[in-house]
Amino acid sequence: MNTDKPESGAERLVHTLIEGGVDVCFANPGTSEMHFVGALDRISGMRCVLGLFEGIVTGAADGYYRVSGKPAATLLHLAPGLANGLANLHNAKKARSGIVNIVGDHATYHAPLASPLAGDVEAVARPMSNWVRTTCSADSLAGDAAEAVALARQSPGKIATLILPADISWCAAGEAAPVRSVAPRRAVRAEFVDAAAEALRRGGSNAILLLGDGAVRGKALSWAGAIAAATGCRLMAETHNACMERGAGRAPFSLVPYTQPVEAALKALAGTRDVVLAGARDPIAFFAYPGKPVKLLPADCNVCELASPEEDIEAALEAVARALGVRSAAGEGVAPLARPAVPTGPISHDGLGEVIAALLPEQCIVIDEAVTAGRSFYAKTRTTAPHDWISSMGAAIGFALPAAVGAAIAAPGRKVLALSGDGSAMYTPQALWSMAREGLDVTIVIFANRAYQILRGEFFNMGSGVPGARAEAMLTIGDPALDWQSLAKGCGVECGIARDLEEFARELRRGFASQGPYLVEVRM
Amino acid sequence: MNTDKPESGAERLVHTLIEGGVDVCFANPGTSEMHFVGALDRISGMRCVLGLFEGIVTGAADGYYRVSGKPAATLLHLAPGLANGLANLHNAKKARSGIVNIVGDHATYHAPLASPLAGDVEAVARPMSNWVRTTCSADSLAGDAAEAVALARQSPGKIATLILPADISWCAAGEAAPVRSVAPRRAVRAEFVDAAAEALRRGGSNAILLLGDGAVRGKALSWAGAIAAATGCRLMAETHNACMERGAGRAPFSLVPYTQPVEAALKALAGTRDVVLAGARDPIAFFAYPGKPVKLLPADCNVCELASPEEDIEAALEAVARALGVRSAAGEGVAPLARPAVPTGPISHDGLGEVIAALLPEQCIVIDEAVTAGRSFYAKTRTTAPHDWISSMGAAIGFALPAAVGAAIAAPGRKVLALSGDGSAMYTPQALWSMAREGLDVTIVIFANRAYQILRGEFFNMGSGVPGARAEAMLTIGDPALDWQSLAKGCGVECGIARDLEEFARELRRGFASQGPYLVEVRM
Repeated sequence: MNTDKPESGAERLVHTLIEGGVDVCFANPGTSEMHFVGALDRISGMRCVLGLFEGIVTGAADGYYRVSGKPAATLLHLAPGLANGLANLHNAKKARSGIVNIVGDHATYHAPLASPLAGDVEAVARPMSNWVRTTCSADSLAGDAAEAVALARQSPGKIATLILPADISWCAAGEAAPVRSVAPRRAVRAEFVDAAAEALRRGGSNAILLLGDGAVRGKALSWAGAIAAATGCRLMAETHNACMERGAGRAPFSLVPYTQPVEAALKALAGTRDVVLAGARDPIAFFAYPGKPVKLLPADCNVCELASPEEDIEAALEAVARALGVRSAAGEGVAPLARPAVPTGPISHDGLGEVIAALLPEQCIVIDEAVTAGRSFYAKTRTTAPHDWISSMGAAIGFALPAAVGAAIAAPGRKVLALSGDGSAMYTPQALWSMAREGLDVTIVIFANRAYQILRGEFFNMGSGVPGARAEAMLTIGDPALDWQSLAKGCGVECGIARDLEEFARELRRGFASQGPYLVEVRM
Repeated sequence: MNTDKPESGAERLVHTLIEGGVDVCFANPGTSEMHFVGALDRISGMRCVLGLFEGIVTGAADGYYRVSGKPAATLLHLAPGLANGLANLHNAKKARSGIVNIVGDHATYHAPLASPLAGDVEAVARPMSNWVRTTCSADSLAGDAAEAVALARQSPGKIATLILPADISWCAAGEAAPVRSVAPRRAVRAEFVDAAAEALRRGGSNAILLLGDGAVRGKALSWAGAIAAATGCRLMAETHNACMERGAGRAPFSLVPYTQPVEAALKALAGTRDVVLAGARDPIAFFAYPGKPVKLLPADCNVCELASPEEDIEAALEAVARALGVRSAAGEGVAPLARPAVPTGPISHDGLGEVIAALLPEQCIVIDEAVTAGRSFYAKTRTTAPHDWISSMGAAIGFALPAAVGAAIAAPGRKVLALSGDGSAMYTPQALWSMAREGLDVTIVIFANRAYQILRGEFFNMGSGVPGARAEAMLTIGDPALDWQSLAKGCGVECGIARDLEEFARELRRGFASQGPYLVEVRM
């Protein structure tokens, strides 16, 4: 470091992030962020990844956290730039991902002038952040940044948004700030451990151990599997999870069925007498529908909250296991390795799932936004090679492709498989370019049914009957047909088409064999 | 209408919009909007235009207003869907466009369950709206909608966001509500008319009549031109305007130079003794730069505010003209028709501007987000055929293509020319698909310099010197190069490439001759 010149605010910020372990930054900078960009030249240790749209930036930071467990930074430009990133921040916040957003703002003395780009950055940030602060002076910058990092690093993670006026970025920095300690998860509440153990022992196959986000991987999942093996209770998880460990060698669990409307979920949960919530919430319908219930458990079911999503779920499950006399989390009842043969014939939802199950690489990271096309994928892949399964927690569309960018950067040695509907993928297609630019090892599968197929079902579920011509025009996207081969090529990504299951298997093998991104368009 | 069944909330809403003159709806619906979509089948008179991303929807509504002077509705899905539309709502609000946003929300009894898509829609709406309301009951829906319409129809326009819980949409509607009267512009303040006339008479060529948004077209502009002819004052407008009438037969005016940093603007305004603000604001720098001023007028300049942007600027200018003895707004000093010859040779900024000036169709609507490539276009097109010129008022990037969708729908008989940098266009490329779907008469020119070229300048302006390798990676987007031919084809839009000025002229002629969208990629 050049000691002749005092460090600028931007330099101090980059140093503070790196010292706090935040060493990847997804960025879409503008004028007010130029000093941050300049600081990257003078400070090593921060990997900066460019996105052409802010939804790529925030979605990538979410995907990065889900795989690495570490917060990334984002670099965003003023209120509109942050606004473009909000939908994927919504997903990240619901997934309890940790992210440090750095949002540049006008210089403190310029802000009152109401220039074209001026806006209320704090107000834009608040709905999708757990913590928002505008740094007011050079002296407070390092401390604010250290606080943001500590918050994002908490378990579960938090969305910390630090707003940085341009003049604080370019002026001489104040004092450095020490790395802050990170608050631990809240401890188990012992009084609930015995109640949970008792409920599961008593309930047997009429009891459900319902896993939330913190319980679907690692030791927590192993303890949960051991509890199920010991008591005969059913092991289920919430419909969507930030990152699930699945496949051979992991404890198998089913999901509360995606509820559109609610019949499948009501059926799956019927007859349940006891539910133990391990970081999960009392299951509810995704949407309300005319005349349908929104709570999914039977009215007479006993619900015991073992651990909230904020608590130490792994310790809670271990304590329950020990109360039940289980000695070790290892092994009993885990899924075997049993892949299906590669099916042939015309495209079908089941067939697509079987091809994926047959070919999935070991330790693959699957990112699932396949929507209607993917409804059977989860069940079909239960006993394939061990893998991670990531789904959108906030259901804001346009998640899979950006999250794949971040997942691939978090896990360079692993293959990422992004599954997306064609409608979903069109919210954030710019992610393809970042994949090509960074040479990321992502296979993207686009299920091109040329419709908002899910909404066709929802139109009916809502009691609107069969769509007429004007409604149908809002539910179909096939005129003109999106040409995914061209869209991929336009962003520098290689691609192929699958019109039947043989072609899907061939294209998926191609994607898995390639070193960079490869897009498979499945013509449904 | 079927009188056996009471009208639903959604049907009542669609009727209220149509009765209030809002008969175009740009939409990206989801489950909570299915009843609105269903209502379209049963009620005629609302044109619904689908966008694949919400930024297209809101940008199109802005473009529609700028050309038609009428608000459109948007249909958006919950907090994340609205969030995706915020950046272009920011632009629309700064342009004082009128828009009625309809945002579906969860059913009232479902909202407290904190489901995946649940969010604080009001909080997301507020920063980029002038008015936000959640309809609380079937009885209040029609009145709320009528109020939103009246607000959006005010002059200048307002952004009104109406949040509609799903159950209010599907239940029986309450009473209909009458169309509300629209508040007129605030009247001229007579005391400022004489002062303005005196300042302009006294100042002569050292005085500037600075036009804001409401004064750069129609009769207001004609009166302004007549005042300049009578007094010898300079006629200038703010750097960016919602919609300017330009070219042959219109009063010519220059713009306060785009200020990066501020030298050009300081030079253009140097020596000014009197400034009369006609709906304009005291000029400021777009950004602050280290050591540079943010106010652009000379310190000893007299500033007289004739009319604020909310006031009746046309009447104010007429009153000043009459005080100066001008009898009619017609004709003196308007620009002649003088097109340049079509230039030849390699691509240059001036040459591109001359090709545009040589070929621009009469009454064309130009939407300018060309950023660095377009700096000379404005001057070059001063005496071409009469046309409208629209620029982004909020400077949120990704404006031109969506605005072109709305402009083309507002003016079916006129050609739209959308000028965009390649970086800018990648924020909202999905607009191309809506153009193809609706067969819109838009020629899109992408200036492909493969860089955030403006930021290269800003890096230097901010005092960061010459970017090193890591900073440069954040400023260039050429690796991989975006292939605009493929991107256009992927969305169903015909296209061509221009590598020199001859090819640019050929491609522009092709675009202007075609009936639907045509994209020209200019390789810079």
